[in-house]
Amino acid sequence: MKEDGIGPGQIIRRKQNGELQYEHDELTVEEPLEIRIGDEIVATTMRTPGHDEELAAGFLLSEAIVRADEKIANFSRPEAARNRENIVSVDLSAPKKIKVTSAQRFGTISSSCGLCGKESIDAIRQSFPAIALNDLRMDIQTLLSLPDKLRANQSDFARTGGIHAAGIFDANGDALIVREDIGRHNAVDKAIGRAFIDGKLPLDRHLLLVSGRASFEIMQKALAGRIPMVASVSAPSSLAVEFAREMNQTLIGFLRPPSFNIYSHVERVILD
Amino acid sequence: MKEDGIGPGQIIRRKQNGELQYEHDELTVEEPLEIRIGDEIVATTMRTPGHDEELAAGFLLSEAIVRADEKIANFSRPEAARNRENIVSVDLSAPKKIKVTSAQRFGTISSSCGLCGKESIDAIRQSFPAIALNDLRMDIQTLLSLPDKLRANQSDFARTGGIHAAGIFDANGDALIVREDIGRHNAVDKAIGRAFIDGKLPLDRHLLLVSGRASFEIMQKALAGRIPMVASVSAPSSLAVEFAREMNQTLIGFLRPPSFNIYSHVERVILD
Repeated sequence: MKEDGIGPGQIIRRKQNGELQYEHDELTVEEPLEIRIGDEIVATTMRTPGHDEELAAGFLLSEAIVRADEKIANFSRPEAARNRENIVSVDLSAPKKIKVTSAQRFGTISSSCGLCGKESIDAIRQSFPAIALNDLRMDIQTLLSLPDKLRANQSDFARTGGIHAAGIFDANGDALIVREDIGRHNAVDKAIGRAFIDGKLPLDRHLLLVSGRASFEIMQKALAGRIPMVASVSAPSSLAVEFAREMNQTLIGFLRPPSFNIYSHVERVILD
Repeated sequence: MKEDGIGPGQIIRRKQNGELQYEHDELTVEEPLEIRIGDEIVATTMRTPGHDEELAAGFLLSEAIVRADEKIANFSRPEAARNRENIVSVDLSAPKKIKVTSAQRFGTISSSCGLCGKESIDAIRQSFPAIALNDLRMDIQTLLSLPDKLRANQSDFARTGGIHAAGIFDANGDALIVREDIGRHNAVDKAIGRAFIDGKLPLDRHLLLVSGRASFEIMQKALAGRIPMVASVSAPSSLAVEFAREMNQTLIGFLRPPSFNIYSHVERVILD
């Protein structure tokens, strides 16, 4: 029993009937991760530990620090550092100098940040080209099946209610990757990072499903992975919709079977 | 009708009965805000426009760039700048030089970032002292009344489902300030920033209620405002709980009447 009246791992729960009791509680773990390229600190994010290499790879890709055609040679944990489990160092096959200005630009991110590393408004709309209007199509029943499939691949969500999920699915609704994190953006980075590490980019036959809202930054991350369709179980922002229209991305919101909304590029959804 | 098949402000909605129809939709606006001290760019965040001065004040306070005992002389929009509605410039009564290193540290934030502006892990636990163990107490019925009061003060949430809220309440459950934003952290910054501007710090007789999860960063922002109690309608993270215990903050999670959990410093809740 600690001096604050609640022991480690313990909570006081008020139940539906008003009864109070001590219970053991499992919390979603939140720890910082420092991402380096070689010895250079690029960013620090709050994340749920696990799949750190994927998170680093996905972040570096979506922030345009590493291009999709570059190769990552190696991930390592610095030997001497304390908290080495909270540091991941990325070595590129063809090492390049990360300029100080870009290290400034990308000096800081967060577990659920919506716009990371831009020093000024002018830098926001960054330089990924629009998605090609290919023949990818998905029918409604497949689309409606995705939230259940995302949940089926999740581990922690039901237990704590405090974790986000991101899944990449093909046009048949088969899951390629599902990842979880306390931060929405981290979950997306981990999923796209896995595909990047496995040489599966571009993901131009795939859909990204996120458990939270669809912000501008989620659309940008999907764009970095060349993903033409993004679905969210919650609301998109105005800028996400604007971005999706410009970048030829199909954006689906409030995907709560049997309902959903389509905000842009409806041509990829087979409506009948 | 745009070439993507959906006109401006228009969405395609699939209703519960499977029927498809075009509808007008209102989206939560997401736009960047650049925060400056004088001419120096300190941060850019994605936010819902409105209460930009409060957002700037709250952010600067919670990032320890401006101290609670400093005074803000003036907020302005740069005359010549394009997008001037997306820039807010803060002048302190006693101007001080924001060092480049700290500008780097705080170079970037986001609408819902969990850890903004720390270039390394070592910088995370930053230097706000713990809350004093004063005699603030709240009874259960008052606590249970807060989510409804938060909703009653919200404007946009019901309409789009895409906006977060933060409210500051006194021990009687009366709302001092309620603010909304697409980003959880921005809503908190706006609420605490309003109190800062009004000279109402420290908020050591108050409780902060947030509509989303309670992360480490939410606890830190409350600490910057000297708020001893934080309640969340969703889950806290492990680090938020650890932080709350160390900093003498009462942390309440899953506040969904008639239920809730208490994670730390139960002594401030009158349980019987």
